[in-house]
This record gives sequence, C-alpha cells and structure tokens, in this order.
Amino acid sequence: MPEEVITTIKREFENNERSHMSIIEISHRSKKFQHIITSAEQKLRQLMQIPDDYAVVFLQGGGSMQFEMMPLNLATKQRNIAVLDSGNFSKKAEEAARQVGKNTAILDSTKDQHYQKLPVVPSNFNASVFDYLHIVTNSTIEGAAFHQNNLPQTTGRLIADMSSNILAEPYNISDFDAVFAGGQKNLGPAGVTVAIIKKDWLADQDLTGVGPMMRYQNHIDKQSMYNTSPVFSIYALDLVLAWVLDQGGVTEMYRRNLEKSGKLYAYLDQSNFYTAPVEKSARSITNIVFTTGDIQRDKVIAQQAEAAGLFNLAGHRSVGGFRASLYNAQPTDAVDALIAFLQKVEQNA
Amino acid sequence: MPEEVITTIKREFENNERSHMSIIEISHRSKKFQHIITSAEQKLRQLMQIPDDYAVVFLQGGGSMQFEMMPLNLATKQRNIAVLDSGNFSKKAEEAARQVGKNTAILDSTKDQHYQKLPVVPSNFNASVFDYLHIVTNSTIEGAAFHQNNLPQTTGRLIADMSSNILAEPYNISDFDAVFAGGQKNLGPAGVTVAIIKKDWLADQDLTGVGPMMRYQNHIDKQSMYNTSPVFSIYALDLVLAWVLDQGGVTEMYRRNLEKSGKLYAYLDQSNFYTAPVEKSARSITNIVFTTGDIQRDKVIAQQAEAAGLFNLAGHRSVGGFRASLYNAQPTDAVDALIAFLQKVEQNA
Repeated sequence: MPEEVITTIKREFENNERSHMSIIEISHRSKKFQHIITSAEQKLRQLMQIPDDYAVVFLQGGGSMQFEMMPLNLATKQRNIAVLDSGNFSKKAEEAARQVGKNTAILDSTKDQHYQKLPVVPSNFNASVFDYLHIVTNSTIEGAAFHQNNLPQTTGRLIADMSSNILAEPYNISDFDAVFAGGQKNLGPAGVTVAIIKKDWLADQDLTGVGPMMRYQNHIDKQSMYNTSPVFSIYALDLVLAWVLDQGGVTEMYRRNLEKSGKLYAYLDQSNFYTAPVEKSARSITNIVFTTGDIQRDKVIAQQAEAAGLFNLAGHRSVGGFRASLYNAQPTDAVDALIAFLQKVEQNA
Repeated sequence: MPEEVITTIKREFENNERSHMSIIEISHRSKKFQHIITSAEQKLRQLMQIPDDYAVVFLQGGGSMQFEMMPLNLATKQRNIAVLDSGNFSKKAEEAARQVGKNTAILDSTKDQHYQKLPVVPSNFNASVFDYLHIVTNSTIEGAAFHQNNLPQTTGRLIADMSSNILAEPYNISDFDAVFAGGQKNLGPAGVTVAIIKKDWLADQDLTGVGPMMRYQNHIDKQSMYNTSPVFSIYALDLVLAWVLDQGGVTEMYRRNLEKSGKLYAYLDQSNFYTAPVEKSARSITNIVFTTGDIQRDKVIAQQAEAAGLFNLAGHRSVGGFRASLYNAQPTDAVDALIAFLQKVEQNA
C-alpha cells in the first residue's frame, strides 16, 4: 500500500471517529458509501480506459472465487474452456473450472521448463469449440508475464487473470472479453476483487443452477451492492486508485516498474552469483524471480534480508529461491537498497 | 462497533504505520495474522460455547453467500430443504436454494400477518424427506425472533441464520447442526462471515459439481486461509470478540439487550401514539419495529430523529415505519435518548 494511502486512512479514521461514524461503521446503503463505490468505479475506468460496453464490478472471494464464477457465467455454451498453463494460478483456475462441471483443455504448459518460458497457442487451435481461452497475465510465483506486446492470439473469447499486475503495466482492455483481479496486490487491501466483463457476452448465457450471488449480472444490476459490500476494502481501494491517478496513472506506474525491475534484472544478469532464470521476453516486471542456484543458501540469504528489514525475499514455498515483488507502492529506493544488499552478499560469498 | 474497538484500531493503525507494516498490508500467511485468526476462532468458541465437534470458519460473501453454500454442501441427499418463512431473509435463502438446484418447501409463513407472528412447524412435518430445516433466528427487517426458548422443534437437521442476533442473546449450539452470520451486525465490519457446522454432517456429502471455494471443508482444512483472507475484517472481528468477552460475554450482552429493548417496548406498549405490532413472545430484542400507524408521518419523524443525531430510525424500505436496531455496541443511553425523543414527538402530536 502507498504510504500516503495509509496516512489518509489513519487521518480519516480519526475524523470519522469524532463524528461517531467510522468508515467501518457506515452502511453500504449510505450516501457516503455510494459515493465511494461510484468514485472507485470511475477511477478504475479512467485508469484502465475501460470501454463503456464493459461492466465493472467489485466482489468478494478473491481471484479464487473468479476461477469458479468465470466458467459458471461464461462457459455455458460449449461448457469447455482452453487454458495456457503459465504457472500455479493457471492450474488452479483450470481445476476449479473442472470442479464446477466444465471441460478443460490445457493448450500448452511450460511446467517442464519450470515456467521460465511462456506457453503458446498451438497453430491448430480451434477456438470455436471453447467458450474462451483463460490466461494469467502475470505469474506471481514463477515470474513470467504476458505483456501487452506478447498476448496470445485467439479468434475466440479471452479471459485474463490480472491479479498480480493490474495497474502495473498497460493493457488494452478491448483485447480481452473479461478481466479479473484480487485486490491485495496492486489495488488495495484483501477483501475486494474486481471483475471487468463485456456486457453482451454476459447477456447471452444460460445460468440454470447458478446461485444468485454467483451471477455477475445481479451484482452489476445493483452497482456492486447486491448484498452487503466489503465497505472498508472498497474505501481503501478508492484511495489507492486516487493515488495511482495522482502519481500519473498506469503510464507512470509502468515507467517506475520498468525502472525498478530493469535495475534489478540488470544487476542479476551481470552477476556470476545470481541467476534470473525466466526468459527475457517473458520476464515479469512485478515479481522478479532469481536464485543463487543453491536453494539452501537462498533460504539463509532471504532470512538475512528480512532481518535487515528489506524485502520479504523468500520465493513461494512451492518453488524456493528468491522473489522480489515490486508492486506499484514499492519505491525505487527499496530496490536500490535490495541491490546493495545482494551485492554485499555476493562480495562476501 | 464498540467505541473501544474503534479506538484500538486507530491506535494500532498508528503503531503499525511506524513499523511500516499496517494491518492492511500484512500477509494472510504472516505469523501475525495466523495469531489473529486463531485467536478469533478461540474467542468465538468460548463466547458461544461451541462444542469441539463443530467446525468454525471465516468466509467472504456475507449471509447471502451462505444461502448458496449451505444447500450446496448440506442438501446433497434429499436435495430438498424445509423453510420456516419469518421474513425477507428466509425467503431469500429459500430462493437461493432453488436457484442452486434444490427443492424447497415453505412449511409455514407468517407473511399474511406481516411477519408479526412466528411461523410454526406443522404437526405432520416429516423431517426425513428434507436434508434440513432452515430458520432465521432474528428477522432484521420485520422484528420477530426465535429465541432459545421458542426454537422450532424438528427430529431432523436444523440450520440457523443468526446474522442479526449472533452474540446478542444465548443459543445452545447443540440445538443446531449449522449456524451462520454475516459480520456486519454484531461481529465486526462487513467483509467477513462466520459459519459453524457439525463436522460429521459435512463429511458425509456428495459435492460433485461444487467448486473448491464453495466447499466448507476446503476452508476448514486450511483454517480459513484457503485463499487470501479478508485480513482487516478478521482483525476487527477479533477485537470485537475481545470486547464482548471483556464486557462479560453473551450473558452480559443479553442482560443489556433485554434492558434496552425492555425499556423501549415498555414505553411503546403504554403509548397511545406508537404501536409495536410484533406478538410479545416473538419480539426481537435486537431490531425493535414500531409505527404510528401512518407511514407518511413515520417518515417525517424518522427524518427528525436523524437530524437530531439519534438512531437511524427509518424502517426498511420494504416495510416502512420505524426500526431501532439495538446491536450489542449500542449503549443504553442511546435508548434513553430515543425514548425521550419519541415522548416529545408524542406530546406535540
């Protein structure tokens, strides 16, 4: 979270307390909250240049709930979805789609290459037998990303899980039919999830057996207040969006993230001690994955980094190694400090 | 929310800010959060005397999501649920169960009596053809409640929606097979929902077609951290539970709520101007519903009350009239001030 946002929450918490109505006490039916949620939607539309024919909704349950809602709402014709497996979260989405009764096909997987390359759409891909193709734009754990310039091409519908790099780099929303993102990386605190969906696609589905809370249309019709909204999380989201706008929008976030990740990758690539194993064209600018090649040594170094008050450097427990997460709120100074630390470790090795 | 809890959140927000790790920034995988969520579960178990053979989980999506999860997880044998219709939220639960593909039977409804009485289980009720009977212990909008001493009797399983009166009055958890409550009334801020479920009942179900996020067992197995938890809401819930314990637990909340509601009902019952229409034995001690008998006049009076900084007195838009919500955090002073205001209006009428 940006420090300015934390400070604002603190200040407003005090003000609200004086009026005996803290942000966590206001009703989701109050005018104050309706103003907040409307403002959050407008800001997100502005930041991502979301066209009017896309709906924007704020939901609960994180990206994991979207792994179920997307197929339940949008895979009702072929009941069949295609997946490019670029990491842990593609696999989870595929499994969830199967559990809710859809067929799935993994078109390509780079699992055998430890997800250090991006999977590709096969040349014989027949989009018409699938309701959509599901991709994860940024693999949080493994560190590979589909950037706007290397998005998979399909003649069919495309859904993107942008949970870990929404607002970190520019994407053209028109290239997707639906996009979703859990809030806890670049959007605000945990507890709110964003879904952006082409309206005409939603309108044309058979939702027999799908419960009211699992139907996007119900939430859209009630402007994300179909039931009690997660008030505090949406309030914090609105502040984060205001901060991103104020800083210069996605263009400026992208510039900073390129700068931050560029510095770190440049250092890692010239080092004989560390390796950043993800293929250059596929490298995430948000989650930078690297290793000394010795998982046990990596662990010790990550503990030293944490003790020094630096990044939480430990790679995800499923892969080990290092992972530096350069979300929007992470300042360049922190990356400089990290590089200095890594250099020192290298010199003493 | 109790004022002490708001003050604590503010103070800790400051402390956390100093350490550059606000509560809304900590990971749900951190030791700090694991301590909070474990502590919250222990406190709830202590407060409600939840037996060990019941699981306790913290979820997202509010009571409305439970309207779908309960039938999906627990109505898999007869695929048929029985409902006592005591107000708006019973009807919503019944509709959601039908939408997810279950059969439903409304055993009794007091809709024609404007929900001023409680529905009863018919003498010929055959529990064995239903997976369970669903009740709402406290009808938030209409103001009737099943208290512990007038719970419906069934030889089958019983599920209770306690969203608006959990921790407000004592219930014997062993009289239920599952209980749930959205957080935003007596438990904390919006964004967290509690479910309490008999473990052996969950174990014995066919969950074909139910997605991973909709399965209670997945959340139970991961101690409510199956995916990213709503960290801030659970943190605030833990503080509210600590406050209730500190005040003397549910026994003391019940004493205060009886006192607050008793004062208000006593005044309304002796008044020739106001009427509290709910049958005495069925009256909620949390949501006190009344009227002058003139919906337009009620509206004007409710506006005056709001202008005077008193309760939000307007009845739910679906029923009109007045509703005073005496949740646990509402002090007795506020009820005294409300009665004084109502008296003044009556005298000037």
